[in-house]
Amino acid sequence: MKEKKIIYSREEMFKMNKRKLEERGVTLEDIALIAYKQQSKYNPDIELSTCLESVAKILTYRDIFHAVQLGIELDVLTEQGKLSEPMQGILEEDLGMFGIDELLGLSIASNYGVIGQTNFGDIDVNKPGIVGKLNKEGRKGKCHTFLDDIVGALAAAASTRVAQIQSEEYAEHDPSIKQLQMDLKQKK
Amino acid sequence: MKEKKIIYSREEMFKMNKRKLEERGVTLEDIALIAYKQQSKYNPDIELSTCLESVAKILTYRDIFHAVQLGIELDVLTEQGKLSEPMQGILEEDLGMFGIDELLGLSIASNYGVIGQTNFGDIDVNKPGIVGKLNKEGRKGKCHTFLDDIVGALAAAASTRVAQIQSEEYAEHDPSIKQLQMDLKQKK
Amino acid sequence: MKEKKIIYSREEMFKMNKRKLEERGVTLEDIALIAYKQQSKYNPDIELSTCLESVAKILTYRDIFHAVQLGIELDVLTEQGKLSEPMQGILEEDLGMFGIDELLGLSIASNYGVIGQTNFGDIDVNKPGIVGKLNKEGRKGKCHTFLDDIVGALAAAASTRVAQIQSEEYAEHDPSIKQLQMDLKQKK
Amino acid sequence: MKEKKIIYSREEMFKMNKRKLEERGVTLEDIALIAYKQQSKYNPDIELSTCLESVAKILTYRDIFHAVQLGIELDVLTEQGKLSEPMQGILEEDLGMFGIDELLGLSIASNYGVIGQTNFGDIDVNKPGIVGKLNKEGRKGKCHTFLDDIVGALAAAASTRVAQIQSEEYAEHDPSIKQLQMDLKQKK
Repeated sequence: MKEKKIIYSREEMFKMNKRKLEERGVTLEDIALIAYKQQSKYNPDIELSTCLESVAKILTYRDIFHAVQLGIELDVLTEQGKLSEPMQGILEEDLGMFGIDELLGLSIASNYGVIGQTNFGDIDVNKPGIVGKLNKEGRKGKCHTFLDDIVGALAAAASTRVAQIQSEEYAEHDPSIKQLQMDLKQKK
Repeated sequence: MKEKKIIYSREEMFKMNKRKLEERGVTLEDIALIAYKQQSKYNPDIELSTCLESVAKILTYRDIFHAVQLGIELDVLTEQGKLSEPMQGILEEDLGMFGIDELLGLSIASNYGVIGQTNFGDIDVNKPGIVGKLNKEGRKGKCHTFLDDIVGALAAAASTRVAQIQSEEYAEHDPSIKQLQMDLKQKK
Repeated sequence: MKEKKIIYSREEMFKMNKRKLEERGVTLEDIALIAYKQQSKYNPDIELSTCLESVAKILTYRDIFHAVQLGIELDVLTEQGKLSEPMQGILEEDLGMFGIDELLGLSIASNYGVIGQTNFGDIDVNKPGIVGKLNKEGRKGKCHTFLDDIVGALAAAASTRVAQIQSEEYAEHDPSIKQLQMDLKQKK
Repeated sequence: MKEKKIIYSREEMFKMNKRKLEERGVTLEDIALIAYKQQSKYNPDIELSTCLESVAKILTYRDIFHAVQLGIELDVLTEQGKLSEPMQGILEEDLGMFGIDELLGLSIASNYGVIGQTNFGDIDVNKPGIVGKLNKEGRKGKCHTFLDDIVGALAAAASTRVAQIQSEEYAEHDPSIKQLQMDLKQKK
């Protein structure tokens, strides 16, 4: 018997994430725009292409792949009416007290630390760009209970990643840092 | 048109959780036994009935209701083959690198703080009692990808709740605590 | 030898938290105002006094007491120059890549679930009211590295608590909820 | 005026972490041994040197550097009696209901996902090797309130990192994975 494929390469995960997001009406550019908007407040000379690159990078990670795929799967199953109660009704209505969508979002964002998580909070509460659009669509027939949080979290992760790279690059080039050799090798 | 019921009372949530767990082969006593085993190391005179009471209490909370119901729903949908790929294969095989089951577990346990979460870690890694049984069954046809983590987290939450109540009771009866009046009322 | 008092009653914790916050320039009203501002977007007929009541309630919890007291202690020790390097410099400068202040904030907010955490993210990023004021003061001599996150988290917790109480009250009074009896007693 | 150095290179952070841990009685080998013990249950042909390499790697990360340095700083300040009450007493006595030490531990471990966190829970509860030794010393004069959790978390992170590398290597070499080209470049 042929075993099912359950482990994917990073390139495959990127392609599958991109396709699934697009099927649900979200482009990588939509996500990059939110990251750009959030990050350009602090770094005015940031470029949208840098944010898009970060979005693409993030979509190759296994943890994030699992969250994106499961969340969208649940939205689709809900639209198809395949869940039983009480979950069918709760996900259809996007019940405000249901928090597992935010939990998935916080989990995606946590790949970029606590700053990733606070940046997700900002996007989740204020709903810029595509996040607000998904949220509205969710009240008119479509189910985006998980998608809006996932997209917001991907934007927060991309935004935070851009800031981290800039900070770490600054650290690397700081002339006051005198480079030391790691002495672990000798130790072993 | 009749609106769907999506908000349940605490008694309803308890009943629905109990029934769903039993349908999947788990009794509240199974869960209480793990809590008892974990907590009796520190408090030898604890009673099983106290742990069972904690399990029942925990099953009335809305956050926990949502996690229990969604997790079991996903296990059932997987057994019914209703998911699309890649999630159908990943949940069928209980892929080790898939972590959203542990995420739900950590979330349930976090209702009892970081100690709830470390207690969940202990149960999740060492798989006592029903958790180990579910884990084995999951490799022979049944899908318990989420259930073993949910049950372990409920046990950890119940165990931690028992410890917290004992600590707080001790605090209340500590004669060195001189009771002060809250001065908020005057402030307002 | 007299043992040190390390466990405090809820009234004592409230008083100690209130005093410590006031010593650092923050009143409970300052915190309640942020909660009010955040929550009145969704619930226009909310009252400031309800938010103040929530702030006071939150300040009686042990987990939150520990986070408030430790965070402020670290700010004060930093102002007194009592830390050694590298922490003295990192906390003095409120290094952006240092995230343990946000970690304490997220931990306080998590007492009100993932919504508490996303609400904290909003406040942490957008810095309304006293949070913005503390942040600015922190750049001119005072050390508020932890305080601004703690205050933001207390406001987020209070705001989320108000929303939860309203939702749960609605749930309790929803006429479509038929009350069921918990059957645990018979079970035991 | 000379500005303080607050950003360190990865080599510097490694050296500072190693020295600080050794000053407090913990070698990298002590930590690697716990990781080895935890991981060799699942991967019997793992080597201690692989675990040691993981420990060293982990100690170069900025988030982990901040948690290690702050935690040990707090232990040292407590031994020196430099804190004010209530924190001085709470940290001296390693109050069981104080959870910020576990919070730092969970935060370190979360760099390796939820599995990192459950692995930390196992070590935190069962206290193998140096963690148990630190815990006992902490009851006789020394203050290891934060150190035992930090060391346990570093071991859990190292253990989980080893498992992840093995899983990801397996994924890379799985012949059923057909390599796809990322089409982002063309997109831009």
